[in-house]
Amino acid sequence: MSDSARSKVAVVLVSGGLDSATCLAIAAAQGYQCLALSFDYGQRSRSELEAAVRVAQAAGVKEHKIIPLQMGTIGGSALTDASIAVPEQESEGIPVTYVPARNTVFLSYALAWAEVVDAAAIFIGVNARDYSGYPDCRPQYIAAYQQLINLATKKGVEGGIIALETPLIDLSKAEIIKTGTRLGVNYGLTVSCYQANVAGEACGRCDSCRFRRKGFDDAGVDDPTLYQRA
Amino acid sequence: MSDSARSKVAVVLVSGGLDSATCLAIAAAQGYQCLALSFDYGQRSRSELEAAVRVAQAAGVKEHKIIPLQMGTIGGSALTDASIAVPEQESEGIPVTYVPARNTVFLSYALAWAEVVDAAAIFIGVNARDYSGYPDCRPQYIAAYQQLINLATKKGVEGGIIALETPLIDLSKAEIIKTGTRLGVNYGLTVSCYQANVAGEACGRCDSCRFRRKGFDDAGVDDPTLYQRA
Repeated sequence: MSDSARSKVAVVLVSGGLDSATCLAIAAAQGYQCLALSFDYGQRSRSELEAAVRVAQAAGVKEHKIIPLQMGTIGGSALTDASIAVPEQESEGIPVTYVPARNTVFLSYALAWAEVVDAAAIFIGVNARDYSGYPDCRPQYIAAYQQLINLATKKGVEGGIIALETPLIDLSKAEIIKTGTRLGVNYGLTVSCYQANVAGEACGRCDSCRFRRKGFDDAGVDDPTLYQRA
Repeated sequence: MSDSARSKVAVVLVSGGLDSATCLAIAAAQGYQCLALSFDYGQRSRSELEAAVRVAQAAGVKEHKIIPLQMGTIGGSALTDASIAVPEQESEGIPVTYVPARNTVFLSYALAWAEVVDAAAIFIGVNARDYSGYPDCRPQYIAAYQQLINLATKKGVEGGIIALETPLIDLSKAEIIKTGTRLGVNYGLTVSCYQANVAGEACGRCDSCRFRRKGFDDAGVDDPTLYQRA
């Protein structure tokens, strides 16, 4: 690897799931020195964040930051109180994993870090094919965010680029798995299950589990997912 | 005021300074039901946040949220540690008020809240004239963020609008002060000083103080700022 490639830094969003693990491997394979960024927003179990830690370590990232997002009351509290509400815990009845404007918030932190370390790129594992219901996973959204980056930063104004990279955006789940497998990703470290147990073992029954398992089947790759015993 | 105007909700970024207090008054005068949003990012003194609380209360906002931004280590720690760093305190030697990608981060939270409450607008008191050195205060940046909002949200995709309003963007400091004075803003509640004391009294000597005082002079408005005794 050349020195110039070595010197390229990328901030990579890492959730602990299959997609972002693949995205991180792709960034590393492109020669970036990777900085992993995760968010603690009251995930249902800690296993997703623990998976993010394992994935980042396995990829040999230079640093891994986990930012606490205290968005609890923004998540949906009734607007009935004129007093100051400093979010500390998620509200009862609100899905704890609900993050409004999710990718916009995540990318704003990624941009902040990218700006500080003079990163050349930000990688996010969004996928327009599997998640077409989310506005902020579409190519148009990513293009708009790139435009924002170009205008938001001193580097952009001076003609420099912080490239917003979305290597998974057009891939099927099977293609993602094949790509990651070729790059040596250990998917056994990742957690996709909506209701994984504390050991990170998947239920095998939720939508996410079934979708993931089908991806391994379609890719012709052995599914290394740790499933809970029946 | 009509019922339809009453039902319009706006998220307004409120820092505790003169500009955002004016911006909030303008939003209220336009008939918006205002939700104030502030950030706790380790401001040099608490007086700025306390001013934000006073300003929001004086404007009769429906709710005021203060979001803790734990960006300490993003603010500029050396990238020398592969361990997980969960930001808790600002690093020594880094200006505690430094927020990289500042308006991008602030607006992403505003968008999150706006999405949850189905707000019609987001107000931010940026000013291209006085702060032309900041890329993220320019009209081009604001236009790019508006485009992002349109693409990032379910509402935008469905043809709805969350308008990003910047009523101060072309105004001089004196014009801002005249506008706010006409709308009844009590600038005595606001704090602009970089080194205000715990009582919120201004030093009268820093750049921000001198700039502010000149604004009152130019506007021909009595300066209500509380200054520290010499």
